[in-house]
Amino acid sequence: MRKIGKEEIENMAMGAALLGTGGGGDPYIGKLMALQAVEEYGPVEVLTVDEIGDEDMIVPSAMMGAPTVMVEKTPGGDESIAAFRELGNYLGKEIKATMPMEAGGVNSMLPLALAARLGIPVIDVDGMGQAFPELQMTTFYLNGKSATPMVIGDEKGNSSLLNTIDNKWTERIARSVTIDMGGSAMVAIYPMQGKDLKAYGVHNPLSLAENIGKAIRYAKDEGEKPIEKVLDITGGFELFGGKVVDVNRKTQSGFARGTATVEGLFTYKGATLQLHFQNEHLLAQTDRDVLCVAPDLIAVLDAETGVPITTEGLRYGARCIVIGIPCDEKWRTEKGIETCGPGYFGYDVDYTPVENLVGKGANNHE
Amino acid sequence: MRKIGKEEIENMAMGAALLGTGGGGDPYIGKLMALQAVEEYGPVEVLTVDEIGDEDMIVPSAMMGAPTVMVEKTPGGDESIAAFRELGNYLGKEIKATMPMEAGGVNSMLPLALAARLGIPVIDVDGMGQAFPELQMTTFYLNGKSATPMVIGDEKGNSSLLNTIDNKWTERIARSVTIDMGGSAMVAIYPMQGKDLKAYGVHNPLSLAENIGKAIRYAKDEGEKPIEKVLDITGGFELFGGKVVDVNRKTQSGFARGTATVEGLFTYKGATLQLHFQNEHLLAQTDRDVLCVAPDLIAVLDAETGVPITTEGLRYGARCIVIGIPCDEKWRTEKGIETCGPGYFGYDVDYTPVENLVGKGANNHE
Repeated sequence: MRKIGKEEIENMAMGAALLGTGGGGDPYIGKLMALQAVEEYGPVEVLTVDEIGDEDMIVPSAMMGAPTVMVEKTPGGDESIAAFRELGNYLGKEIKATMPMEAGGVNSMLPLALAARLGIPVIDVDGMGQAFPELQMTTFYLNGKSATPMVIGDEKGNSSLLNTIDNKWTERIARSVTIDMGGSAMVAIYPMQGKDLKAYGVHNPLSLAENIGKAIRYAKDEGEKPIEKVLDITGGFELFGGKVVDVNRKTQSGFARGTATVEGLFTYKGATLQLHFQNEHLLAQTDRDVLCVAPDLIAVLDAETGVPITTEGLRYGARCIVIGIPCDEKWRTEKGIETCGPGYFGYDVDYTPVENLVGKGANNHE
Repeated sequence: MRKIGKEEIENMAMGAALLGTGGGGDPYIGKLMALQAVEEYGPVEVLTVDEIGDEDMIVPSAMMGAPTVMVEKTPGGDESIAAFRELGNYLGKEIKATMPMEAGGVNSMLPLALAARLGIPVIDVDGMGQAFPELQMTTFYLNGKSATPMVIGDEKGNSSLLNTIDNKWTERIARSVTIDMGGSAMVAIYPMQGKDLKAYGVHNPLSLAENIGKAIRYAKDEGEKPIEKVLDITGGFELFGGKVVDVNRKTQSGFARGTATVEGLFTYKGATLQLHFQNEHLLAQTDRDVLCVAPDLIAVLDAETGVPITTEGLRYGARCIVIGIPCDEKWRTEKGIETCGPGYFGYDVDYTPVENLVGKGANNHE
């Protein structure tokens, strides 16, 4: 067990922006909420999965909806607490702790705010090791765990408690409810016992985010290069570097979808990269080669500072380095690829692990 | 208290088709379900509101969705029971009885099937005295009663328990969930105490439906005219008579919307009637005059037999008599007209009680 305060939250938020692979909601908003909650209620206790009992009930807390909407409609803390409590009452069990559903973006931060306000611990585990746009895209789902009962609630006081026959139905119904609720809502979802988290969760995403964040924020002070240090920590690869020359984006069915075009600079001069996103970056390819595709992670970093750029933050002229990071091994199964691979998102490419792609990709321009 | 069996159900179903004003779902399906349940579990106990305690908890059971979909996707009994039980568990109270939400169509019959299967009584009361297309359109809503907590469930086993800040939010979210669930679903909704039903409900709709049904089914045997007898029982007016010459219909946002054109025959020769419906018939007008508009009731009856014709049953060439019936007094308030009047449904006419319109309408052709 350790307690985390403002400094850790700043680092985690920076790392979570990277693990969010451009999506998961603006981590800045989540960070502000976590910082404010810690300011008001004191530090948050963070436990590893080894520190919880097998039968302990843990409920993730998350925001659902399009990040483009959430920027306009900041989630308060009250609807998280209301959803969390309604689910607890329904389960008829004490909820011992919360946890992030995804390691990326706002959803890595919001559980910290909830935990501070309720005085319960956060478990350092999640169901993705990154961020994905749909509810069934979790390592829990790969292992047959139900996303329901779940509660979805809005800032007005509306709530819906769902019980569904499978997690794709959860996604379908909860997505409609989210759209009705104004495009974003808070959920208490995937109630899990300690033993499930030990077996099926992605471990230590908060610590990983913290280390990534530290590297980006402080590497320069220590005479190191932020992006190099990030690649070192994550086992990732530099895929491309250049300038954003075009961004097409629309909010559709509750998702921020689009494509960004990056023109090669630095050692990538003469090449062009297409970045396809649906809330998160899902496919990076040049005219010749796929460089990285989901479920592997694609992050776009400011070329100078290493600070992650979200899909909604992509702007014409931004100088960036695009990196690829191998996903958690749990995703590299048939069901994992079927659930979060290129085919599911409608991209006509096969999944190949990023470490096998980098040998033949744009790096050859070097 | 009285017990009802097959004969009463046949009569009620016929009358409910008329009170459904063309909508509320095909009463034939509801009747079959009620008959089958009575066959299997025995007669159903029907109580008047005076026979229940003020604190007794009563929960209406209903089908939600477009009738055009329901014809293809017959509701089973299991999802009604599941929704009913989930709401009971949530309320933490014994549910003493069920009741219809609306007097019209399938939703007047389904509670009979549920009551038979669960061995509980049905209260002879509803929240409309007719049928309306949206959840907030109840006399309970006019008196500030919440439609939630409610449970909506489908035949696959998905369910959503809603708590909303007002009944328009209930309608909005439940409608989306219904569409996700395939266009129709079962709901347990508007949990009410006995005293609320006494004060705010429309009393004795089942008995009224039964009397109407008897008139239509047996008047001829007694040498009487079915439609005349129906007008006598309901206090209604004959508005128009003719032949259906055109029907435009589409299923949109979960509703069956459309317009039917009736060419005058009999004493109405030379005139043309437009019937506008959104699940239910809402507006009857000639080129010159409004003849009847919601919340007053508009029913289309077979000119020969008096059998009601549903909006989905409207066919080219059908000979029909269109009648208008004054709605329950509870609807004739400012909030009542705002909730279910012509303005809400997008028709640019003022509400005038049907009894004030008939003096100057197409009846003048006589």
